[in-house]
Amino acid sequence: MSHVSEPTVRRLSHYYRVLEEVAAEGRRMISSHLLAEREGITSAQVRKDLSSFGSFGRRGLGYHVEHLRQEIRSLLGLDRRWRVCVVGAGHIGSALAGYRGFPEQGFDIAAVFDADPERVGRTVEGIAVRPMAQLAAREGFEIGVIATPAAAAQGVADALVAAGVQGILNFAPRKLRVPDTVTLRTVDMTMEFESLSYALTRARVPGARRAGARRTRVRPRD
Amino acid sequence: MSHVSEPTVRRLSHYYRVLEEVAAEGRRMISSHLLAEREGITSAQVRKDLSSFGSFGRRGLGYHVEHLRQEIRSLLGLDRRWRVCVVGAGHIGSALAGYRGFPEQGFDIAAVFDADPERVGRTVEGIAVRPMAQLAAREGFEIGVIATPAAAAQGVADALVAAGVQGILNFAPRKLRVPDTVTLRTVDMTMEFESLSYALTRARVPGARRAGARRTRVRPRD
Repeated sequence: MSHVSEPTVRRLSHYYRVLEEVAAEGRRMISSHLLAEREGITSAQVRKDLSSFGSFGRRGLGYHVEHLRQEIRSLLGLDRRWRVCVVGAGHIGSALAGYRGFPEQGFDIAAVFDADPERVGRTVEGIAVRPMAQLAAREGFEIGVIATPAAAAQGVADALVAAGVQGILNFAPRKLRVPDTVTLRTVDMTMEFESLSYALTRARVPGARRAGARRTRVRPRD
Repeated sequence: MSHVSEPTVRRLSHYYRVLEEVAAEGRRMISSHLLAEREGITSAQVRKDLSSFGSFGRRGLGYHVEHLRQEIRSLLGLDRRWRVCVVGAGHIGSALAGYRGFPEQGFDIAAVFDADPERVGRTVEGIAVRPMAQLAAREGFEIGVIATPAAAAQGVADALVAAGVQGILNFAPRKLRVPDTVTLRTVDMTMEFESLSYALTRARVPGARRAGARRTRVRPRD
């Protein structure tokens, strides 16, 4: 599976969720059509994605649910546990620390750090907030989350890199520089709103299908 | 631009950000290569995306920054303001209410609602938390955000639909049912972690390029 882009990984995550659901329902086989059930994914795309890492469905039968679930689980790195630390004990950091879905998928929030002495020593979701100075001591964190104001984000990224993390998930609205050996993902909440405003704008174009429709066609604007 | 998928809209959001940056730097033209600067986007993809809505660069010159910025701004529905209400005044709701990037792009958080009488009357980021009963009164909300526990999410979605919203952004880890006339987007925080764990897992495969590399190649697993 060469040339794997972020959208492809998102689709793998999506297939994995569908497979978990149908596994819970006790189904043994699933069609590419059912796996595709989301805006912008076609069954042809599903077959292409899955064949590219060697998983072939059988015509008329589809894919074996449990086999495919394990395969994608392993591809996504979910067949092990990840040690995660969060920097920033504000709203976003607290929300992440308390999100039950993370430990369920193998992401353990092992520590929360904050630069504000007022916050240090408090607990968020049962985790004690520790001073930034303690981040320097290596504790085997593999993933670091930046949930600080934009102005602090680059300094925090540098501290996370120095502490040996391999991946950083950044919630601060700031472009960050990290070494090539560290994987950086930035979450931009405004993009989620833009996906909606795009769809709602299209819904108003005369002659276009409604917002809920799977496909929208854009007429030339005036 | 028919068959517009979510990944395509994400790429438009990405181009828009790059264009805002280079416009601020005073640049007049931009190449498809510079617009592509992100994992998983090629310059060929940029040219395909932009030509599909009638914007053609000029060989050797590229695209006109300000013209393209305005065009994408209009496509994304960012050339107007959107009235947004948030339901749930917990960590996520509070984080969203305080995020400065939203009003900057036209998304005005006009109200915050919560079902918990303890939270009603408090303020989050300067906005008074109001009781859910007031959501029923139409105030012209166009987008509703669900930032409640999973168990409450469907009820909130129904209330938002009854209040006339056209789009819903759901942060609760629950599949929701809404009418075809309402656009629903669900934000799954675990997917962001999975994008990282995927990249970090690939980085460990012997012979694969490092995590920071633009492209990774997956070897057969044992």
